Amino acid sequence: MPDLRKDPVSGRWVIIATERAMRPNDFKIEPHAPLSADVFCPFCEGNEDKTPPEIMAYREKGSYANKKGWRVRVVPNKFPALKIEGGLNKQGVGIYDTMSGVGAHEVIIESPLHITSLTEMSIWQVEEILWTYRDRMIDLKKDKRFIYGLLFKNVGRAAGASLEHSHSQLIVTPIVPITVIHEMEGSEVFYKYRGRCLFCDMVRQELATDARIVMEGKNFIAFTPYASRFPFEIWILSKTHASHFENIQKLEVEELAKILQKTILKLEACLTYPPYNYIIHTTPFTYGEIEYYHWHIEIIPRLTNIAGFEWGSGFYINTVTPETAAEFLRNANIQNNNEDMKL
Amino acid sequence: MPDLRKDPVSGRWVIIATERAMRPNDFKIEPHAPLSADVFCPFCEGNEDKTPPEIMAYREKGSYANKKGWRVRVVPNKFPALKIEGGLNKQGVGIYDTMSGVGAHEVIIESPLHITSLTEMSIWQVEEILWTYRDRMIDLKKDKRFIYGLLFKNVGRAAGASLEHSHSQLIVTPIVPITVIHEMEGSEVFYKYRGRCLFCDMVRQELATDARIVMEGKNFIAFTPYASRFPFEIWILSKTHASHFENIQKLEVEELAKILQKTILKLEACLTYPPYNYIIHTTPFTYGEIEYYHWHIEIIPRLTNIAGFEWGSGFYINTVTPETAAEFLRNANIQNNNEDMKL
Repeated sequence: MPDLRKDPVSGRWVIIATERAMRPNDFKIEPHAPLSADVFCPFCEGNEDKTPPEIMAYREKGSYANKKGWRVRVVPNKFPALKIEGGLNKQGVGIYDTMSGVGAHEVIIESPLHITSLTEMSIWQVEEILWTYRDRMIDLKKDKRFIYGLLFKNVGRAAGASLEHSHSQLIVTPIVPITVIHEMEGSEVFYKYRGRCLFCDMVRQELATDARIVMEGKNFIAFTPYASRFPFEIWILSKTHASHFENIQKLEVEELAKILQKTILKLEACLTYPPYNYIIHTTPFTYGEIEYYHWHIEIIPRLTNIAGFEWGSGFYINTVTPETAAEFLRNANIQNNNEDMKL
Repeated sequence: MPDLRKDPVSGRWVIIATERAMRPNDFKIEPHAPLSADVFCPFCEGNEDKTPPEIMAYREKGSYANKKGWRVRVVPNKFPALKIEGGLNKQGVGIYDTMSGVGAHEVIIESPLHITSLTEMSIWQVEEILWTYRDRMIDLKKDKRFIYGLLFKNVGRAAGASLEHSHSQLIVTPIVPITVIHEMEGSEVFYKYRGRCLFCDMVRQELATDARIVMEGKNFIAFTPYASRFPFEIWILSKTHASHFENIQKLEVEELAKILQKTILKLEACLTYPPYNYIIHTTPFTYGEIEYYHWHIEIIPRLTNIAGFEWGSGFYINTVTPETAAEFLRNANIQNNNEDMKL
C-alpha cells in the first residue's frame, strides 16, 4: 500500500509509492558532462573579459579587478532575469498586478580552475563560497527595493545549468517568492498552535528517530525529509534556531562547508554524478529575527521528469522512501582520506 | 526592462523577460516520437489482455468487455500511484501526518488505433473522451473516501509520458491537492473583496483586451494567461460560471471538443509537435456549487527545463510574452478543411 505523507512546512502531500520502489542504480541518469578542457569557458581564469565586470572577488593581494588572481568571483548574469536599475513602478492592469522587473541576478564563479563539482575543491574553497553567499546577501539587503535573496545552484543540463564550470547564482527580488510565503505561513500556523519552531521540532524528531539522518555534526544535520518529493532529496538544517542564513557564525560556516561537501560526495557516490539543484531557503530581508521560520538548504537530485499530475496537483509521487535513501547515503562508500572532512 | 506579473489565482509572480524573448522556432524541441507500428503497444485494439481488466468502455453493440470493439477504454494503471482498496488510516507520526495511499489511478485509452495525438481524431472521438472524463468523475465521486479527481494528459517523454498511444489519466485522491487549495484560497479572497468570480472577471477582461485570446467560441475561450509561467501556456475557460467540470452540458462538450482539438492543433503547428501536459482544474467532490472557483483546463508545453530558481521560489522566468504567444497561435496556419472544427 502506498503511503501518503504531508510536509508540515508547506502543507503539501507526497505519495510514497513503496511497492514500485527503485534502487539507486535503477535510475537512468545523464551524468553531468565530463571535463571538456578544449571547449571555451568564460568562467575560467584568464577569460575575465568575457563576463560582465565583476561585482566583487576574493583575490590575491596585489591582483586587479577583472584580471587573474581571484579565488571566487561574482559577476552579473550576462542574461539577467531582473535588472538592477530603476524603480518598482507597481501598478494594476484591470484585475491583474504588475511591477518592473527590478532586482539582481548574479553569478558566483566558484573556482578559477575549470572544475565541475564542489566535491573537487579544498574545504577552504567551499567555505569561501559560503562567505561569498553571505557577503552578497548582506550587501544587497541594503537596497530598500529588494525583499528576498534566493541563492541556488544548478548542476548538469537536466537541472538547468548551461555552463559546467562550478558556479552558483543569486537572484534578488522585489517580492517574497510564493514558495517562501507558503512555507512561512505553514510554520507560523505550527508556531501559533505549539509555541515552538516547526524546524527545531523536526531536528529533534529526526535525531530521535534516526531513520532519515544522513549525517550529523555539532551544529547541523543532513537528512532526507519525511515527505520527500523526490528520490534522494536532502535537507540541511542547523540544530539551533536561526531565521536568516546571512547571520551564520564563522564556526558554523566551517562545519556547513564540510557537511555540504560530504553530502554531495555521498549523492555523487550513490547516483553517479546526478544533475541536481540546491536552494537556500531563508527569511525575507524585511523581517527581523523571527521564531517560527528557520533557514535551510534543500538539495534536489533531478532524476525524474515532472509529469502532468505533479503540475496539476503540486503533489508528488516518489518511488524511493526517504528511509531507503538515507540508508544508501549513510552507507555510501566515499573516499574520505581528507582529514579536513571530519565533522 | 523585464516585467513582473502576478497570477491573481495562485498569488504566484512570473518574470516576463521580454528582452531575451524567443521566437517559437528558437526552441530546441524533442518532438514526441513518430508512429512506430512495429513496437508492441498494450493500448492497441487486440491487446486488451495486456492491460488490467477494463473499468468501463464505450463499445459497439454486441462486443464484449476486454475484447475488440471499443472506442474509448478505461483501465486501472498497471503501476498505480494509489490503490483503490482499504481504509484511510489517518494518523500522526510525531509532528508528521500520514494516511494510506488509497485512491484511484485510471488510464483512459482514447482510441483503438495507434494514434499519438488528439488532433488526428474525428471530433466525435474527442467528444467521447470528454464524456469518459465526466463519467469516471461522477462514478468515483460516489466513494466517500475520495475528495478530488485530477484529470490530466502527458504527451511526449519530456512531459512524463511512457507510452505514445494517445491516452489520459485520472488520479483520485483522499485529499485536496495543494495547488487547488492555493487556487481556491486566492479566488475566495478575490470573491470576498469584489463579490465576483475571479475567473469570470478574467474572461471579461481577456475578451475586452483581446491581446491574449487564442480562440473564442460561444461558450469557451482559449487564451494565454497574463502571468503565463511557460512559453505558450494556454488556459481554456467557460464563459459562464461553472465550478465543477463534471456538470458540463452536452452542447458545451461539443464545443469544448472542438476548441481543445483546435488549440492543440495550433500548438503543434507553432512548435512542431511539442511535448505537453494538460490538466483539468476543478472543484473538490466535497463542495457543492460554489461562486468563487471556476473549473478550467491548463495546457503547458514542455519546452524548457525547470532550474533551481523555479524550484526554490515557485516563480517562473518566461522568455515569451503571452501576447506574442497568442499572436503566433492566432496566426498559426492549420489545415482546417474539416467542417467539424468550425466553432
